[in-house]
Amino acid sequence: MTDRTGALIAIGGHEDKEGDRQILRAVAERLGGGRLILATVASEEPGEYFAAYRAAFAGIGVVDVAELYLDEREDTSNPANRSLLAGAAGIFFTGGDQLRIVSLMGDTPLEAEVRALHARGGVIAGTSAGASAQSETMLVRGSGAESHRIGDLHMAPGLGLIPDVIIDQHFAERGRIGRLLGAVAHNPRLLGIGIDEDSAIIVEDRRFRVIGAGAVTVVDAEKVSHSNIAEAKPDRVLSMHNVILHALSAGDQFDLEERLPLARAGEESAEGAQGAASS
Amino acid sequence: MTDRTGALIAIGGHEDKEGDRQILRAVAERLGGGRLILATVASEEPGEYFAAYRAAFAGIGVVDVAELYLDEREDTSNPANRSLLAGAAGIFFTGGDQLRIVSLMGDTPLEAEVRALHARGGVIAGTSAGASAQSETMLVRGSGAESHRIGDLHMAPGLGLIPDVIIDQHFAERGRIGRLLGAVAHNPRLLGIGIDEDSAIIVEDRRFRVIGAGAVTVVDAEKVSHSNIAEAKPDRVLSMHNVILHALSAGDQFDLEERLPLARAGEESAEGAQGAASS
Repeated sequence: MTDRTGALIAIGGHEDKEGDRQILRAVAERLGGGRLILATVASEEPGEYFAAYRAAFAGIGVVDVAELYLDEREDTSNPANRSLLAGAAGIFFTGGDQLRIVSLMGDTPLEAEVRALHARGGVIAGTSAGASAQSETMLVRGSGAESHRIGDLHMAPGLGLIPDVIIDQHFAERGRIGRLLGAVAHNPRLLGIGIDEDSAIIVEDRRFRVIGAGAVTVVDAEKVSHSNIAEAKPDRVLSMHNVILHALSAGDQFDLEERLPLARAGEESAEGAQGAASS
Repeated sequence: MTDRTGALIAIGGHEDKEGDRQILRAVAERLGGGRLILATVASEEPGEYFAAYRAAFAGIGVVDVAELYLDEREDTSNPANRSLLAGAAGIFFTGGDQLRIVSLMGDTPLEAEVRALHARGGVIAGTSAGASAQSETMLVRGSGAESHRIGDLHMAPGLGLIPDVIIDQHFAERGRIGRLLGAVAHNPRLLGIGIDEDSAIIVEDRRFRVIGAGAVTVVDAEKVSHSNIAEAKPDRVLSMHNVILHALSAGDQFDLEERLPLARAGEESAEGAQGAASS
């Protein structure tokens, strides 16, 4: 273990488990040979999740894995579960229902163990529901493939491992820009981060980097000049002026404090190449 | 007819044809009792379109309608077609393929008649393909429900009735934010306007107003600080930093010259009401 906080890896769901497994490799390379806990807490039928991820990680050399599952909230006091995390190098939250993760683990000794793991340099990863649960506020329910209606959104507090953000997943695939705009309209203090399938952000030191096949969309409502979110007619379509949007893809980095993308490494040479190509 | 340019009405498709018909009424009330031409040019099977719109308009009192259809480009020189438009108070382009509209009508005497109709105060409306065709540049093909890949987009010149914009339709329903971002990345001079189904913009004097049940999304790439659109690897996911996005809904107005939403009428009193509600 290092003496600095570990990485948080939030994945948009459906990450590659049979090919190159780039995203799972990003988790694996941060384990330093230590044990990975597969937390299947988000699902009421965890068996298949565990089997699939055990196989996917075994294929890239991660064989020291154990499952964390919870039936009830009282299971979080179980010393066996706590010692599982105390001896781990990382934890990976599989998909399902993000409310199951936080309603079972929120404000428990087990949640404290997750924070301790992060604080001592361990990697905390999660996909789909497991990604949403990492953010300060989670989107729990809201329609996709339509523009946002004010009443059509349910949010809940997440584990808060990544403060000041709200993460949505399966983002482009399920047409979720509307609900993420609706979410940040409620309180522009939170930055909205929409992660596509087979794509992830790796958060370290209040910066993140994008990896994977799709995009990460950031919506920032800080400069919004008008919104009708407080009008309280539930079927009213959202109106919100002057949102800043960043479309990010593999290699892009983003500063969560400044709320700005970082200049891309090698951008100058890329521009040089463009100039040459178009001349 | 008035002595000022008429309205352009671009509709996102699937507008209500049986209920209140708010959008079709907006067309009807601009006819001043004159004749409406139903231009079914976008479809190779125009019969059903014509029947559906004739019935929908008849139900709101518009009975003086005629069909404009073109099999071939040479039909645009047909004096009967030209006189149809010369005597009309408005034209409504139904859905289908926007390329059919512009490839048949572009740079023809009939297109000149459409412009003349607009110039003398007539209303030019279009839904779906008929909306796209009004803009300076049309999106012709590009995937929905995924983030934009640089090579996955085809554009073509539109009729240019609304300059400096690119209009997309069925916007939220088909998850088209990615392809619209891709389109404006090519040249930020064009403002991207995504119109949901059963929603429309009414353009008058370089301003538009939103009507209908859904939203209109405006994406403005003028302030973009980085984009990889010119990298020319077709499967590369788009990266574009600092896009401005406006989510607009019924009643919102937008200034196409300033590229800014206009302050909402009654906003002050609405804010007063919010203050009261939350106190």
